Amino acid sequence: MKATMMHYPLTLNHILERAGKLYGATEIVSRLADRSLHRYTYKDFYTRARQLAAALQQAGINHGDRVGTLMWNSYAHMECYFGIPAAGGVLHTLNLRLFPEDIAFIANHAEDRFIIVDDILLPLFEKFKHLIKVERVFVFSQTSKPAPAGYEDYEALLKSAQGQFRYPDLDENDACGMCYTSGTTGQPKGVVYSHRSTVLHALMAAMPDTTSYSSADTVLPVVPMFHANAWAIPYVCTMVGAKLVYPGPFLDGESLLDLYQQEKVTVSAGVPTIWLGLLQTLQQNPGRWQLMPGMRMTVGGSAVPVSLIKSYAELDMEIIQGWGMTETSPIATVSKLDHHTRKLSPDERAAAVARQGTIVPFVDIRIMNDAGEAPWDGETVGEVQVRGPWITASYHNLAKSEESFTADGWLKTGDVGVIGADGCLRLTDRAKDLIKSGGEWISSVDLENSIMGHPSVAEAAVIAVPHPKWDERPLAVVVLKPGQQATVEGIREFLLGKYAKWQVLDGIVFVDAIPRTSTGKFLKTALRETYKDWKWQ
Amino acid sequence: MKATMMHYPLTLNHILERAGKLYGATEIVSRLADRSLHRYTYKDFYTRARQLAAALQQAGINHGDRVGTLMWNSYAHMECYFGIPAAGGVLHTLNLRLFPEDIAFIANHAEDRFIIVDDILLPLFEKFKHLIKVERVFVFSQTSKPAPAGYEDYEALLKSAQGQFRYPDLDENDACGMCYTSGTTGQPKGVVYSHRSTVLHALMAAMPDTTSYSSADTVLPVVPMFHANAWAIPYVCTMVGAKLVYPGPFLDGESLLDLYQQEKVTVSAGVPTIWLGLLQTLQQNPGRWQLMPGMRMTVGGSAVPVSLIKSYAELDMEIIQGWGMTETSPIATVSKLDHHTRKLSPDERAAAVARQGTIVPFVDIRIMNDAGEAPWDGETVGEVQVRGPWITASYHNLAKSEESFTADGWLKTGDVGVIGADGCLRLTDRAKDLIKSGGEWISSVDLENSIMGHPSVAEAAVIAVPHPKWDERPLAVVVLKPGQQATVEGIREFLLGKYAKWQVLDGIVFVDAIPRTSTGKFLKTALRETYKDWKWQ
Repeated sequence: MKATMMHYPLTLNHILERAGKLYGATEIVSRLADRSLHRYTYKDFYTRARQLAAALQQAGINHGDRVGTLMWNSYAHMECYFGIPAAGGVLHTLNLRLFPEDIAFIANHAEDRFIIVDDILLPLFEKFKHLIKVERVFVFSQTSKPAPAGYEDYEALLKSAQGQFRYPDLDENDACGMCYTSGTTGQPKGVVYSHRSTVLHALMAAMPDTTSYSSADTVLPVVPMFHANAWAIPYVCTMVGAKLVYPGPFLDGESLLDLYQQEKVTVSAGVPTIWLGLLQTLQQNPGRWQLMPGMRMTVGGSAVPVSLIKSYAELDMEIIQGWGMTETSPIATVSKLDHHTRKLSPDERAAAVARQGTIVPFVDIRIMNDAGEAPWDGETVGEVQVRGPWITASYHNLAKSEESFTADGWLKTGDVGVIGADGCLRLTDRAKDLIKSGGEWISSVDLENSIMGHPSVAEAAVIAVPHPKWDERPLAVVVLKPGQQATVEGIREFLLGKYAKWQVLDGIVFVDAIPRTSTGKFLKTALRETYKDWKWQ
Repeated sequence: MKATMMHYPLTLNHILERAGKLYGATEIVSRLADRSLHRYTYKDFYTRARQLAAALQQAGINHGDRVGTLMWNSYAHMECYFGIPAAGGVLHTLNLRLFPEDIAFIANHAEDRFIIVDDILLPLFEKFKHLIKVERVFVFSQTSKPAPAGYEDYEALLKSAQGQFRYPDLDENDACGMCYTSGTTGQPKGVVYSHRSTVLHALMAAMPDTTSYSSADTVLPVVPMFHANAWAIPYVCTMVGAKLVYPGPFLDGESLLDLYQQEKVTVSAGVPTIWLGLLQTLQQNPGRWQLMPGMRMTVGGSAVPVSLIKSYAELDMEIIQGWGMTETSPIATVSKLDHHTRKLSPDERAAAVARQGTIVPFVDIRIMNDAGEAPWDGETVGEVQVRGPWITASYHNLAKSEESFTADGWLKTGDVGVIGADGCLRLTDRAKDLIKSGGEWISSVDLENSIMGHPSVAEAAVIAVPHPKWDERPLAVVVLKPGQQATVEGIREFLLGKYAKWQVLDGIVFVDAIPRTSTGKFLKTALRETYKDWKWQ
């Protein structure tokens, strides 16, 4: 039987049009490279995003053509988020923290026709521009200086738009954006989002039980716009009319806290390492910043230590944890206090939020191991596999591999975990970060979490190191808080109450800093390389 | 360019499966006809809805077959909401407040193969059962009595389910439900919802700026489940895991208030007349009920008087107004306090909420008059036309008429109104309720609103009555509050400060009750008939 409903495609163009009409007075604030604050409204944004679309169309961008961006978080990058798809094109965000050769590989693999670059990123761009085939390069000035010789100007591109703009006819399954995974091994792989997947993901992200964005919010994404769509923040905020604050290249604690206070930010979002640093700044400067009561921090990208959740709760700041990846748009689970867990003790509340969280509507998750699909018992470990309307089914221009996808169409995430009877996912490790010691598995994530609960420890990463007797043993690489001291024995003592003796660390090294991936995660491949010849006592 | 996203249809089956797994412990409470409270959980609901689906499949319900329901709000009706679509069938809710002949016409027009009936509605059913062609009738016992001779038992149907249930393969555009408009004139017209339209509407309804349902809520729909999907409440609550409380046939103020208190209801929903009555019960019994702080009441179906919004605000109860119709699933606009209007004075706040509200995401609305599309200036009046993924494009088995749809594919709502610069819709009238007096239009809705602001008035309906000199003049039909008195002159005085003299009423009649439509709206056709020969002084 036929439904009588209208055929109405889900596109970003609807979100842009509605925001221009309904949220004309709401502000979008951007910190630029000279530290000045640029302010305009959704009305201005709407006008300029459509200008960009018209100019790109007139410059020959056709349906499905990729336009790359090499940009920090700003209003101009947001114009690209909507203006490129409005032209029928595909926004391809380039990760400025990768090696220049890798960026070039990615731009070539995606076949970017144009690239839009922040002027302050030109030194990076010039390291790889000879490696890429790109027709035109437009420079957005963060510094009020004109584009250098040999480059075109982003503002001039906008001004070149002629006549009435008309959206191209779009199918909701048409591509609107793409992003490459920044895995630490193997070739980068491209994920191509559709208008439909982006819209559905945004609708889910707005829900009260997920990240709950509304027109009453002021949102500051620390997460870069070149990381998995900045977790959909530009899309969701435009859909609900939330005020946006873009921090530009200044991601240190003081710069962020100044903006939080001045712009009355209610929600911010970033990886755990951002919040580890911010917490220290807050603790070292009690009373210096007046933040909004109940401010939320959405955290993702790697596991969030329990101690971090608890410390922020004491400051009336709520950690909301999301789990996902570039391949999942990215949100697949969300962990936050609900009306049950809100009643628990502070320790129990923090432990509840430290799980990866509740499977969001329209995502399916299963745990697979050698015995098949694991029960939802909170105990049976296996690989996490996902399915849903905003999950990738393949990688751009790559043959579908058994390593990444199951025969029945689920994405293999490479994460290892359990699902509880309440549908809450808890990761125990990345498959490649598990430590196999004397035939038993040890979770590096659990150990890291526990060590970071030690009062003197700022950060800790645990890796597997070969061991002559036990096959592998865990080694902890630890950064102490400024001015704090700790001994190997002291940390071992601290852990002994919590773990069986064989699980407790044999090796602990103190370092000044832990190397990171471009997304702010601990770069465990580098640590494994550094300590591969570690001599066990 | 092809997106790499998975093909994953949006269906109610996903919502059912997820609720069964994630919200197993959350309660669904139903008041039955003997006033007892039936309690079970989403886990029980999930098991029984799938049993119903399996039993219906085995009884021969094929893809797209209609199954009618003639039921009050209860867990059994909710099982039909999900179980019938899970079988591949189409839930067709029959409106028990229509004339028996009209119900028969509708059941025949929809070609319902089976009907599920509450036992207490069998007296109604028997008035039209000889007029319909239906293969099987199942009786749900609200009273613990077995089904009478000649009828099959709903519980026996569930028990008949054999073997493992398997969902049929569904396309998201397949029909899942249908509902006939209960217009007061003309043939009833059927709207057929798809899985996709129902899912998208539910996602929108959950958003913080619309009706904001979450797992922390306890929701009591007074709006019947045979009215426009009970405004999506069964769907949204199952998606977010909200506790549900169904009031059965007991919709009087005391019964509802008892349930609100006992079950800690945070949200309720119904037509304005329900809240007019409830307010009087609250005012006559101060302190008798302890309700949840900040309880929300979602109101739709007809315009909400400003005085009602203000009175509830004084009781710390928030009115959220929705506008829409059966043809729009139903939500097209939502009016509630936001961070701007929350700062206004109590009078201004109530006036803001009394507008029909902000156009929700993915709905387009335009105002059309003889001059074309009206600007969004809050002044230019015209017919309200809508478009979107949960708006009907036609009526079931009826030729598409110019009366209902524009050539370019918008639904003509028959409502008349304006849109403000902020994208907020304000209805001024139903097209057929406008009063044309001496060449000028008078809004019956405005007059009704104002009269209901008079301290002695409980309800007022204003209609156009032929006039020898002015063509038409407004006549107000007024119900006073119990024990209150008022005169025609007193009400005229009350209005004179607010209106031009020619707009103020010439005629006022006091009555004990105003006739209503089956959806609780004032039955203006009956009033027009009663007063068509009114003698003007």
